[in-house]
Amino acid sequence: MGIFVWCGVLVRVFHTLVSVGDVFSVLGGYYRLEPLGVEVVGLGDALWRVLAVDVFAPVDVPPFDRSEVDGFAVVCGGVVGAEEDSPVRLRVVGYSRIGEPFLSEVRFGEAVEVDTGAVVPRGADAVVMVEYCRRVGDDVYVYRPAAPGENIAFAGSDVLRGDLILSRGTLLTPREVALISALGLREVAVFKRPKVGLLSIGSELRGPGESLRYGEVFDVNTYSISALLREIHIEPVIYGVVGDDYSSVFNALSKALSENDVVITSGGTSAGPTDITYRVLDELGTPGVVIHGVKVKPGKPTVFAVVNGKLVVGLPGFPLSAAMVFNLVVRPLLLKIMGLDVVAERKVSSVLADRVVGGKGKEHLIPVILISRGGELISYPIPTASGSISVFTVADGFIRVPENVGFLSEGERVETYLLSGDVRSSDLVVIGSHDYGVNIALSLIKPRPSAKVVNVGSLAGLIAVGKGGCDIAGTHLLDEETNKYNVSFIDKLGLSGKAILIRGYSRRVGLIVQRGNPKRVVGVEDLLRGDVVFINRNRGSGTRTLLDMLLKDLAKSSGVSFQEVSARIKGYSLEAKTHTAVAAAVAQGRADVGIGIEYAADLYGLDFIPLREEHYDFVINSASYGKAVVQEFINVLRSVEFRERLGRLRGYKVGGDVGSVLQ
Amino acid sequence: MGIFVWCGVLVRVFHTLVSVGDVFSVLGGYYRLEPLGVEVVGLGDALWRVLAVDVFAPVDVPPFDRSEVDGFAVVCGGVVGAEEDSPVRLRVVGYSRIGEPFLSEVRFGEAVEVDTGAVVPRGADAVVMVEYCRRVGDDVYVYRPAAPGENIAFAGSDVLRGDLILSRGTLLTPREVALISALGLREVAVFKRPKVGLLSIGSELRGPGESLRYGEVFDVNTYSISALLREIHIEPVIYGVVGDDYSSVFNALSKALSENDVVITSGGTSAGPTDITYRVLDELGTPGVVIHGVKVKPGKPTVFAVVNGKLVVGLPGFPLSAAMVFNLVVRPLLLKIMGLDVVAERKVSSVLADRVVGGKGKEHLIPVILISRGGELISYPIPTASGSISVFTVADGFIRVPENVGFLSEGERVETYLLSGDVRSSDLVVIGSHDYGVNIALSLIKPRPSAKVVNVGSLAGLIAVGKGGCDIAGTHLLDEETNKYNVSFIDKLGLSGKAILIRGYSRRVGLIVQRGNPKRVVGVEDLLRGDVVFINRNRGSGTRTLLDMLLKDLAKSSGVSFQEVSARIKGYSLEAKTHTAVAAAVAQGRADVGIGIEYAADLYGLDFIPLREEHYDFVINSASYGKAVVQEFINVLRSVEFRERLGRLRGYKVGGDVGSVLQ
Repeated sequence: MGIFVWCGVLVRVFHTLVSVGDVFSVLGGYYRLEPLGVEVVGLGDALWRVLAVDVFAPVDVPPFDRSEVDGFAVVCGGVVGAEEDSPVRLRVVGYSRIGEPFLSEVRFGEAVEVDTGAVVPRGADAVVMVEYCRRVGDDVYVYRPAAPGENIAFAGSDVLRGDLILSRGTLLTPREVALISALGLREVAVFKRPKVGLLSIGSELRGPGESLRYGEVFDVNTYSISALLREIHIEPVIYGVVGDDYSSVFNALSKALSENDVVITSGGTSAGPTDITYRVLDELGTPGVVIHGVKVKPGKPTVFAVVNGKLVVGLPGFPLSAAMVFNLVVRPLLLKIMGLDVVAERKVSSVLADRVVGGKGKEHLIPVILISRGGELISYPIPTASGSISVFTVADGFIRVPENVGFLSEGERVETYLLSGDVRSSDLVVIGSHDYGVNIALSLIKPRPSAKVVNVGSLAGLIAVGKGGCDIAGTHLLDEETNKYNVSFIDKLGLSGKAILIRGYSRRVGLIVQRGNPKRVVGVEDLLRGDVVFINRNRGSGTRTLLDMLLKDLAKSSGVSFQEVSARIKGYSLEAKTHTAVAAAVAQGRADVGIGIEYAADLYGLDFIPLREEHYDFVINSASYGKAVVQEFINVLRSVEFRERLGRLRGYKVGGDVGSVLQ
Repeated sequence: MGIFVWCGVLVRVFHTLVSVGDVFSVLGGYYRLEPLGVEVVGLGDALWRVLAVDVFAPVDVPPFDRSEVDGFAVVCGGVVGAEEDSPVRLRVVGYSRIGEPFLSEVRFGEAVEVDTGAVVPRGADAVVMVEYCRRVGDDVYVYRPAAPGENIAFAGSDVLRGDLILSRGTLLTPREVALISALGLREVAVFKRPKVGLLSIGSELRGPGESLRYGEVFDVNTYSISALLREIHIEPVIYGVVGDDYSSVFNALSKALSENDVVITSGGTSAGPTDITYRVLDELGTPGVVIHGVKVKPGKPTVFAVVNGKLVVGLPGFPLSAAMVFNLVVRPLLLKIMGLDVVAERKVSSVLADRVVGGKGKEHLIPVILISRGGELISYPIPTASGSISVFTVADGFIRVPENVGFLSEGERVETYLLSGDVRSSDLVVIGSHDYGVNIALSLIKPRPSAKVVNVGSLAGLIAVGKGGCDIAGTHLLDEETNKYNVSFIDKLGLSGKAILIRGYSRRVGLIVQRGNPKRVVGVEDLLRGDVVFINRNRGSGTRTLLDMLLKDLAKSSGVSFQEVSARIKGYSLEAKTHTAVAAAVAQGRADVGIGIEYAADLYGLDFIPLREEHYDFVINSASYGKAVVQEFINVLRSVEFRERLGRLRGYKVGGDVGSVLQ
């Protein structure tokens, strides 16, 4: 690790990044990745522990020849030829109850009544089910012959005394607990669980329920990493938020290290000048930081330190990065320390729905949605920023683009690493432009479907329909040529025959200004004023296209070029991705005016200057059109309740044609 | 439900069995399958709870325009044309630290230093990464142009204030906990968890650590069902073993019902005359038993009762049956009561490796092993008795043969219902004849592979190799014609080219008699004596073939037929499936003599009369031969350590040719 002074500022340079695949071996040079000891626990506490010894069967299972049915134990030779109309009569010499075995021998011509689970007495070599017998006094009529061994589980046929039943290093799931209890073991020797301390580094972090000052965010990693630890049955010791000054970090880490076997931090490890975690870790003990960063994006500022025999993992501060790195590296590492002999990666095989880009010198992790289509899993990559939180609930996992691989192609078979233990299959996937009506429609479907809603914008939604990445896309794309919404894009994007366009509703779009309109904005011409800061929408959005059309008209009427007009707007290049983001920027004073839908202005208590109405419609994947839940979605759009609920939102207009097929 | 007296014994007849798919609707007529109430928990206790309300975002995430990198916030227009050899110089007017935002505006020609996660100040529309900048005093040289919005996460671009973030009925996994913490919520309203009481009914059941009397078994369901409940985050109240007399069951159920919302019992529900659970349930309250059995095998004696508004589920006594029925019916039922809106079935799509048989009027559940081959999952059915325990750790799940379907064919695509949340992929699957050497060999492979060993006998093992159901089969099949082991069966079973035969070792096989040989047995001729009870091995086993060969010789020399000889042996038709089961039968006095390997006699402290040596060899699936772990297995067979360790077991002989390729 190099530290050098550059123009009076301490600059830290990452110079020994380690590949994900090398973390274990590099770390292994400083820290033994093995269990911290053995303890004995009772059978009732054995679940999710890891066996520290081989377990051999001390008894046979079943411990005796056991009847699998209710019936009569017989000698097969004595019921040869028994049939429906010519039963064989046997003398019933006893009853073998569960727990009360018949202790004598069964002979030819005799039978002993037996219960399911009871001992099959000596001499008998089959049990005839009670359904095929009729008891009359001390005799029984048997209406079917029996094969030797029929309905008998012989002693030791299931588990053999002396046999190796479970190996050291086995995780005790409910299945192993069942086996151990069948052997009558009262306790088992398991590996000690590591004590793990958890702290979030960052002066900007606030706890839940606190109020945020400008520039502050809520602490996520304390909760998400501790949940991920609980998922592997480690209950962490939580130290909460630690300010990112040297002495706070030093004191918190010292305390956490003295009280735990492993300490996990997040934040405070990127290369910015304010980071001090490195210095503290090197100061606290030897050898200090041993891995100064990992060749992975996101997740580069992940550090590993060994401090006087204890392990410290420093995760990146962004929660999604922290969670992905935890799943990829820290989880298997902890499972090793917990003693698991075989650490299976949580991944599934899938087909990539769209091209993803990698890069030089770093593996890239790309969050994806898993979609099941015809027995095949499809991974649909989600465009996202590494700081994203919402991706957590949308993405099922992530794919890995290896170091120095430029891209992975659409249709390639890839491994998808799961973000949680279960693959969640959604009934319905909606990808496209964000709108409040979508959530209202989903909430009206009974029973509520398991739906994934991914807001990536109209164009990306239509592309997802074409690639089979979703069932429904919400869209409001304005065609500059026709001045109409949506319809022409089905053809333009090659979706004819692949998609069906369903009429949605209208939303009023206009200029969002601060309450009371202090800058006295009346129309787009005011955006050119020197005292007005604007916030724009992203290119490709319907709203942006509308603004540019209005500015072109303005340019034409003023006799100047569109470029001249747009260059004069302060903030023209500042692109917010959603209507609400525009409203938030205005509400927080970062801009004086933005362009967006009226309901967004209403949500933030802002004023609104209407420009026009835009059509928000639904494009449905033809392959999904027959799905019951898709039909139900369309039915809901047509319902009175939906029209009433959406119509109540300011600026929305729901017509009688909502839910009709346009194309 | 009909009860009638037949020959003085109370007989209970199941007459209204319900299909698995109908359980919810039938039960729903008597019990509301919905949550029992709502409670508010802190964020730290929210994991694995189910949301009782829709959660709307109270804030934007991010709450401000956030820099995604360390760098300099700029106005894009001001760095147009910046390049490696012609940087643009900007005046640094401030520093936006994490949690300490720069509050003024950035203008053309200016820059503000920003940290990852810090506020991007007003006026700036991009952040240039620090890697492309050089700070000199109050200025910064920028070596790359910037695109609008580059490295900025705009306020609300991730989560929008007012948006529906999580729906009522959502399970809070680590992913949802992350999202909730990012919103700053301190607590959430969740559904109450049902209180579940658990009891095992059966006088034959003993607790762990107790000693078994003849006919008794250890209580498994208390531990396995409570582990399965913990898997869905319900901590049951355990009432332990209850004797199966009326008043014990009545008292235990009364107490459990008064203290819980739901009571789960196991055992005591089959149609045998001693069962009293039905009567107790009908007695305890109304409407009593509402489902008198389920059309599923195993699992028929599953009952559902509603007692004064509380739910009682009676599972079958056999642990595997109980666990499968729990997974199939009870788990989804409890998840509904826990408030989960969407209860996903835990299943994976797979290809069936072998034909399985169903039956009339009942769905059949067949345990299977999941094997991954070339990205495809294969389900290999395991022949098993419903009372089996070992199947728990071998089987990954089970397939369902629907009611009235005669069979499912090899190669059919089926759904495999998982026994636990994870699909376990094994490095190595060994199916075949049981032998102690297999476990020794596996224990010597470092690192120890994740191996599945399934003991189904030599012939079934060879068939599994042919069907691709395993990597290795252990076999000791004697060819009567050639009097040789194993070799000829490769051809006979059509395995030429599909399998490779590897030399194993020899085991001495003979007659196992009680210690001191009280019946003075000296050879197979003694089996014909009237005072000797024999225990045989199953047909198709090498040992059985050996015995029959010896009996044929005996018949020949005595001038009688083989049938006459075998008919004279008491217990000839009594088939034990393993050597150890034979030894156990002799040790427990159920037989005087059996046929098996010397080590089994040794394990049970019995005497042994040698007959001959048999060859135990390994047949390897050609497709698996190149696998590293298979090669490692063969290397271990050849190792000195293996030869020494196996050679120490009585009756084993390991030659210098162990591990060599025979064919």
